[in-house]
Amino acid sequence: MIQSRVDRILAKMKEEGITQMIISDSPAIFYLTGKWIRSGERMQALYLNVNGKNKLFLNRLFPQKDDLGVEIVYYDDVEDSVEILSKFVEKDKPIGVDKFWQARFLLRLQELGSGSKYLNGSIIVDHVRLIKDAKEQKLMWEAGLANDKIMEQLVPLVVKGYTEKEMNDIVRKMYLDSGHSGVSFDPIIGYGKSNGDPHHATDNTKGKRGDSVIIDIGGVLNDYCSDMTRTVFIGEVSERGREIYEIVKEAQARGIAAAKPGNRMCDVDHACRDYITEKGYGDYFVCRTGHTIGIEDHEFGDVSSVNEEIIKPGQVFSIEPGVYLDDEALGVRIEDLVLITEDGCEVLNHYTKDLTVVPENN
Amino acid sequence: MIQSRVDRILAKMKEEGITQMIISDSPAIFYLTGKWIRSGERMQALYLNVNGKNKLFLNRLFPQKDDLGVEIVYYDDVEDSVEILSKFVEKDKPIGVDKFWQARFLLRLQELGSGSKYLNGSIIVDHVRLIKDAKEQKLMWEAGLANDKIMEQLVPLVVKGYTEKEMNDIVRKMYLDSGHSGVSFDPIIGYGKSNGDPHHATDNTKGKRGDSVIIDIGGVLNDYCSDMTRTVFIGEVSERGREIYEIVKEAQARGIAAAKPGNRMCDVDHACRDYITEKGYGDYFVCRTGHTIGIEDHEFGDVSSVNEEIIKPGQVFSIEPGVYLDDEALGVRIEDLVLITEDGCEVLNHYTKDLTVVPENN
Repeated sequence: MIQSRVDRILAKMKEEGITQMIISDSPAIFYLTGKWIRSGERMQALYLNVNGKNKLFLNRLFPQKDDLGVEIVYYDDVEDSVEILSKFVEKDKPIGVDKFWQARFLLRLQELGSGSKYLNGSIIVDHVRLIKDAKEQKLMWEAGLANDKIMEQLVPLVVKGYTEKEMNDIVRKMYLDSGHSGVSFDPIIGYGKSNGDPHHATDNTKGKRGDSVIIDIGGVLNDYCSDMTRTVFIGEVSERGREIYEIVKEAQARGIAAAKPGNRMCDVDHACRDYITEKGYGDYFVCRTGHTIGIEDHEFGDVSSVNEEIIKPGQVFSIEPGVYLDDEALGVRIEDLVLITEDGCEVLNHYTKDLTVVPENN
Repeated sequence: MIQSRVDRILAKMKEEGITQMIISDSPAIFYLTGKWIRSGERMQALYLNVNGKNKLFLNRLFPQKDDLGVEIVYYDDVEDSVEILSKFVEKDKPIGVDKFWQARFLLRLQELGSGSKYLNGSIIVDHVRLIKDAKEQKLMWEAGLANDKIMEQLVPLVVKGYTEKEMNDIVRKMYLDSGHSGVSFDPIIGYGKSNGDPHHATDNTKGKRGDSVIIDIGGVLNDYCSDMTRTVFIGEVSERGREIYEIVKEAQARGIAAAKPGNRMCDVDHACRDYITEKGYGDYFVCRTGHTIGIEDHEFGDVSSVNEEIIKPGQVFSIEPGVYLDDEALGVRIEDLVLITEDGCEVLNHYTKDLTVVPENN
């Protein structure tokens, strides 16, 4: 167990008046133990109690070493795992449960009457994870720098005649070859028309002269995720392309300027959105502005118009406004990750945001 | 909606005295609608009511065509999806919920007081899905035949010097090249010592003379899964290898003979297990004997010593006993899928189970 993190969770539990909690999600368990435990369809549960009597419940098929710093209770496939867990739950007290815990487990726990009330305990874990500690900040910096290098290698390839699927394969290999354990999400290399769809599925489209190319990529380096988007143009850029590009670039800069302690998450969204709207393209910026990132590519804490939480030092999130003109086969998105400091933020990506036209015969 | 399947679910709900149910799992929704709907982190819920007023709740980011045969209720990212769903729930009646529904949704529904009692409704869906209809039986047959062909192509390659990882890549490509949408699980090609671990992770081991090679593979063809295991030997087979092989082969044949209506699932397990135990290797057959299969590789209904449910026509499950001798770097598993008929079963795999020694210079 990483005691400083466990302590932060236990402190927040006390603050919220919850004495016990079940954490089942693998990334949350990794955050607290430093170990990836993935039990597939079998139940896994880290039971935390403010009295310090923490326990980890695992199926015997997924044994762990004894050095985890928490007592492990194993169960067999033929046993009722939740019943075993329930024996350790304080029946007369509320219990926080993991937001991702499956109903088959939660309903069984409720049937057994273990706990006086059931609450979404992940709100506590998520708020602790939101503030990256020094070690995490260092890892996010390193992941960002490594992602800069991947972008550098990838941009010149957009004029080489590869399909989106081929580019997807190429970038996946780049991450593996550079020390990443893999990609942090399915890489997007979207040529021209494809850009308009924010949930773009990679297809066999090839790039052609004049296309805007959205490159949205990230890897997992030492268990932490990177994520960056750049939009470049092939051969030439239309007047409209240039106009949109500069609008998105300025919107993103305004988002970054708003990313500081004391502001709310929605202020960052508004900073981007208001500028795009002012320029007449508000209807074409359909997504939220960003998302929190760390062990997972998408963590708790949207940068959206409805998230009024106050920004705090140690947060890391993406700022990625875009304008997508389906009818004109034109789309631009620019994304960086920012790490909130005491009085502002550090940008974790460094690949140029100047308008880039990749020459066709290079 | 595939009305015959919906009708079977509604009939079973009436039988069990449940009037309303939430189904959220993508394979279960596919089973009932014929459409794959995957909403990622967003809530998706098919609400069924015996009064016929069924509804499908989806995020607006994942729009569906209007031809689904069920009214779709869309919600936005900034809306409380469970609250919208709760308006349609009969508050004063029990409600079945999907076993995989996440606690964040179930807890919110409970907080809103929607439903007088919360039950695991998947027990109903699972029991209906357990009995494959005529269309499904045909698809399982076709998937099995296609898997036979992959095994035929793969077995000769075990002497070509490929590592397990390379074999894994090769077999994945074979499935894609033969009309499958992919593999139904991570393919296992385990040489020698690696066999002993039933949760084998593919590594860089290469095969060598005398190795037993466990080949456990399956693909997804027209949305239905195949799954078959054969064990072959490289160049030669030891006396012990031959002994174990024949024991597992006979155990598997006994399992198949026990797979018929009226017997219990555990009778199939016992038929395999008792024979292996009688021959002195009971301690080395550590897993359950098999699992139900269909749209998913592992579906509800284990072939295990504790499953006392009566076998019925239309069921499809695997029979895969094995003996794993870690200390001797020797493991044998033989697996077929069976489709239960009125008076016995049909075996869906046809690749030979005769002891096979692959010559090294072929």
